[in-house]
Amino acid sequence: MSLALIAGQGDVPRMIAEHHKDAGNAPFIIVLKGFESDWVRGFDHEVCGIAEIGKVLSTLRAKGCDTVSFIGNVKRPDFSSLKPDLKGVSLLPKIISAARRGDDALLNSIVAIFESEGFKVIGAHELLDGLTQPAGVLNSVAVSDSEKADIQEAYRIAGAIGELDIGQGAVVCGGLVLAVEAQEGTDEMLRRIARLPVEIRGTEDERKGVLLKRPKPMQDKRVDMPTIGPSTVLKAAEAGLKVIAAVEHAALWVEVEKLKSLADADGLSLVSLRGNGDWP
Amino acid sequence: MSLALIAGQGDVPRMIAEHHKDAGNAPFIIVLKGFESDWVRGFDHEVCGIAEIGKVLSTLRAKGCDTVSFIGNVKRPDFSSLKPDLKGVSLLPKIISAARRGDDALLNSIVAIFESEGFKVIGAHELLDGLTQPAGVLNSVAVSDSEKADIQEAYRIAGAIGELDIGQGAVVCGGLVLAVEAQEGTDEMLRRIARLPVEIRGTEDERKGVLLKRPKPMQDKRVDMPTIGPSTVLKAAEAGLKVIAAVEHAALWVEVEKLKSLADADGLSLVSLRGNGDWP
Repeated sequence: MSLALIAGQGDVPRMIAEHHKDAGNAPFIIVLKGFESDWVRGFDHEVCGIAEIGKVLSTLRAKGCDTVSFIGNVKRPDFSSLKPDLKGVSLLPKIISAARRGDDALLNSIVAIFESEGFKVIGAHELLDGLTQPAGVLNSVAVSDSEKADIQEAYRIAGAIGELDIGQGAVVCGGLVLAVEAQEGTDEMLRRIARLPVEIRGTEDERKGVLLKRPKPMQDKRVDMPTIGPSTVLKAAEAGLKVIAAVEHAALWVEVEKLKSLADADGLSLVSLRGNGDWP
Repeated sequence: MSLALIAGQGDVPRMIAEHHKDAGNAPFIIVLKGFESDWVRGFDHEVCGIAEIGKVLSTLRAKGCDTVSFIGNVKRPDFSSLKPDLKGVSLLPKIISAARRGDDALLNSIVAIFESEGFKVIGAHELLDGLTQPAGVLNSVAVSDSEKADIQEAYRIAGAIGELDIGQGAVVCGGLVLAVEAQEGTDEMLRRIARLPVEIRGTEDERKGVLLKRPKPMQDKRVDMPTIGPSTVLKAAEAGLKVIAAVEHAALWVEVEKLKSLADADGLSLVSLRGNGDWP
């Protein structure tokens, strides 16, 4: 395969690009306008507007790419202010109508476009196995029975939230749903946990509660995989949480060695559940 | 009936107490410790700790009260720091176990205790009809078709969230779920809408999106009715929302004349849906 990354923000695009370059297969990079950053200078790349779909497709063909991966978070655009090219104009109505049904429908419609143009679409987790984790407690902080019960409840709640296409994450503490993630993102959700009354949450001295992230049940795992990075651990620590949990091979653990040492130092457990949500 | 109010925070306890006093039926007030405020001095009252259940019951009996109403928000207490009296000690295990299943189970267990002791428990909406509203657009700002679609979606999402005992409120804008309320409360949820990217929300210049609150489907309407007050309108206005919606006779609209003039001035619509969620 000849691989192109269509890159949004965050550390994951850079990590994957460098990993493949080190292995002698430097990918071609499409940088989405607004997400330019320094690391792409080391790669053959092109900057494209988010609605310049014709330019993206013709660039990929000119570079001989047959496989694409959408990597890194991209904020939902203001569709009314986009500057589509000719191809973009023809496709935008369908994309906008999908976007109205939620993030998941929006991403699926974009994957479908690239597939119908003959490209193979693969997920970040297929490009860097080390980003996902098998089932297990990933670090050296043990999990108590009551935390296990909170993990199960958070798994159930996040599943229900995902089915409604609301979001991927939930925080549960002592059986109580403290927060549910919608458009604000995980870091912002964790920030508000820290502002809840101490009576219903943990503290840095006495940790309680679980953050769990899982893909939406109907979600295509090739896009928008739940991501857990150093800032997730730092914010969860500040929020007094005890556990960060996800599902085996269904989350991107960015810089996992750093995550483990941060979590060990703060007294947080990192847990990767079995695919069916069972305790590892 | 001889009525006692068991009063938490907010304006509703005072409004109801004064309304009944003006009608010549001043209620007896149990003020929960931590929620003392000046207005109760005008009433026969007693301050009781939240776990002094024996004291509450014997005070009510000594005052000849046969009917109680729980009015005003009460934060979930830290059960481990409560100072229960003898009766409280015997009932606390059951209450704590209910509390672990969520707010709704907690409140239902408290209602059941008072009923089993022979008291009639009635809701705030039964004490002051003017607090709830029949179906209709309450003020003079019209609602567009796309806002009506957002209202329907918010009704559906808030219903699903309520079934999971997560919370009562949701914000939807252009079909997208911007936020879902859990333990943080409505004001805090509205505050984070204002911090979302402007591409996906309204602004004070171009309002978009709907806040909808409804009781949880299995909720006892005698406690914890969705409440909409002046701060809800102010925060919704700051968040760029266009509509605040609730369900007929299933929300407390506090100081509704003030709400209407605030909403008119800011260009927000106040909507009371039919009981089945249909447009009025």
